[in-house]
Amino acid sequence: MRKIAVDAMGGDFAPKAVIEGAILAASELPENYQIVLIGKQDAMLEVLHDLEYRKGAIEMIYCNDVIEMHEHPTRAFSQKPNSSIGVGFKLLKEGQVSAFCSAGNTGAMMVGSLFTLRTLGNIQRPPIAGYFPLKNGNFSLMLDIGANADCKPEVLMQFAELGSLYARFALNIESPKVGLVNIGEEEEKGNTVSQAAYQLLKNNKKINFIGNVEGRDLFEGKADVYVTEGFTGNVLFKMGESLYEYAVSQGINDPLINRMNYEVAGGSPIIGVNGNVIVGHGISSPLAIKNMILLAKKQIESNVVDKIKEVFS
Amino acid sequence: MRKIAVDAMGGDFAPKAVIEGAILAASELPENYQIVLIGKQDAMLEVLHDLEYRKGAIEMIYCNDVIEMHEHPTRAFSQKPNSSIGVGFKLLKEGQVSAFCSAGNTGAMMVGSLFTLRTLGNIQRPPIAGYFPLKNGNFSLMLDIGANADCKPEVLMQFAELGSLYARFALNIESPKVGLVNIGEEEEKGNTVSQAAYQLLKNNKKINFIGNVEGRDLFEGKADVYVTEGFTGNVLFKMGESLYEYAVSQGINDPLINRMNYEVAGGSPIIGVNGNVIVGHGISSPLAIKNMILLAKKQIESNVVDKIKEVFS
Repeated sequence: MRKIAVDAMGGDFAPKAVIEGAILAASELPENYQIVLIGKQDAMLEVLHDLEYRKGAIEMIYCNDVIEMHEHPTRAFSQKPNSSIGVGFKLLKEGQVSAFCSAGNTGAMMVGSLFTLRTLGNIQRPPIAGYFPLKNGNFSLMLDIGANADCKPEVLMQFAELGSLYARFALNIESPKVGLVNIGEEEEKGNTVSQAAYQLLKNNKKINFIGNVEGRDLFEGKADVYVTEGFTGNVLFKMGESLYEYAVSQGINDPLINRMNYEVAGGSPIIGVNGNVIVGHGISSPLAIKNMILLAKKQIESNVVDKIKEVFS
Repeated sequence: MRKIAVDAMGGDFAPKAVIEGAILAASELPENYQIVLIGKQDAMLEVLHDLEYRKGAIEMIYCNDVIEMHEHPTRAFSQKPNSSIGVGFKLLKEGQVSAFCSAGNTGAMMVGSLFTLRTLGNIQRPPIAGYFPLKNGNFSLMLDIGANADCKPEVLMQFAELGSLYARFALNIESPKVGLVNIGEEEEKGNTVSQAAYQLLKNNKKINFIGNVEGRDLFEGKADVYVTEGFTGNVLFKMGESLYEYAVSQGINDPLINRMNYEVAGGSPIIGVNGNVIVGHGISSPLAIKNMILLAKKQIESNVVDKIKEVFS
């Protein structure tokens, strides 16, 4: 039995949206999978009471604390070991579950990943990898999208390596093309960090570096992996999400813009830590939660964490 | 007579697109305006030969050199004083024209602005200000969008002051709201530069600072002035432009997305230098050139350069 732990208390519409999403996912998961919902007993039972689901598909683990969205991540994670996030990482660390997903406090998910699971080998700063939609119907992996606002060139190089491994094993792309998000095509273009990162990427034999990608290239899918500091990545991603919301309000129904909807990918993996961790959007709907859980399944089956461990240790 | 100089050799489709755009603009400008086209005689006459226009509306000044799009800006500007860009800055410096517009080498336009016109007062790094489209039908001014990839916090603070003055005098916004492009709402969020810039902006009495704006806020128009390092600003802008092109290809006709079209604003002013300088997109069409020239007119009439001079000297 493979188990995917889900933070039932995480997100603006938790626990209802999370539990509904988990039930949707349960109906699509094979029988050897089980979803482990972690949350406060009363709150969970109240929601589950009205819903129908295959009992064996969902297990419940109770906790008595919650890390709220605006709590300080490090402090909250240390002070609330019996929060849903704290318990989730404990289960993952102990191998009782194969993945942990939460649409709750992203900072606390990052802290849990670093403190409880630890980074793999010499990885300095695990990135959050976002699924960036392309015109051709696929996604590129953009990393980082917000965990690391400032990055040294060496850190960007690790993002490139991690993104390549993820794209290869979790997305089945043979030799993933890596592009550096930048403000010009030529290698001397950019800010200090991107100029230095370009040289590291160019000379790195472990990746298939294709050079800089500009803002205008992003939807074209010039690369399978887009490397960027979390600052720019986050602004780009959030702008895309807001554009999707705007398009819906205008009645625009377009395949590219529709995939700017955070619900489609459902979540973003934290890569480079010793376990499968997926973070979701704070406003996650049941559909988003379902897709986050299915993403966790895909990532578990790819064994990408073990592949990264082999390379980085 | 007020004169607007236009680099007839600047842009991928020069001189044809530029001259056609100038003629379109001439038909909309009042009689006390004249467009001064600067370019190679043969190339200009060949295009003009086939076109009709009011003779008094367009003057021609011949040069025998051109700074190409991919030349090194500083080197090219020094070595080609008789290029269209070189001549344009000379005319502007001497007061023979009131503004200079070019869709050519942006770096050379920046160098010309710095070397020939000079910055005003203690301005450290003049930004390029882009017109960022909003859901409400207006634009916010985003600065910088590419001239300064790395910015110190003090430089971002000057962008805020410059943007405020530009919005007040050139865009007639009484007390322009200033937002810092960032990756969270709270003041402690962001990268090192944005965190430090936040403190400077918060304590600056000359501006109406409203705090951070995230990627998802940009189209909402939370602020009239968006302050950002040129790196992020450039990537955002170019992504928007490519989205417009994509939307056209899909038959999407939406008021917000349509204004991501660079042709609508036509150009972007370089602010903080001693003169009216507008740069256009390399792929500028006649429509874009026309709008760039009309933007120059608006900027001339606002006297915004004098207003900035008063404040910064």
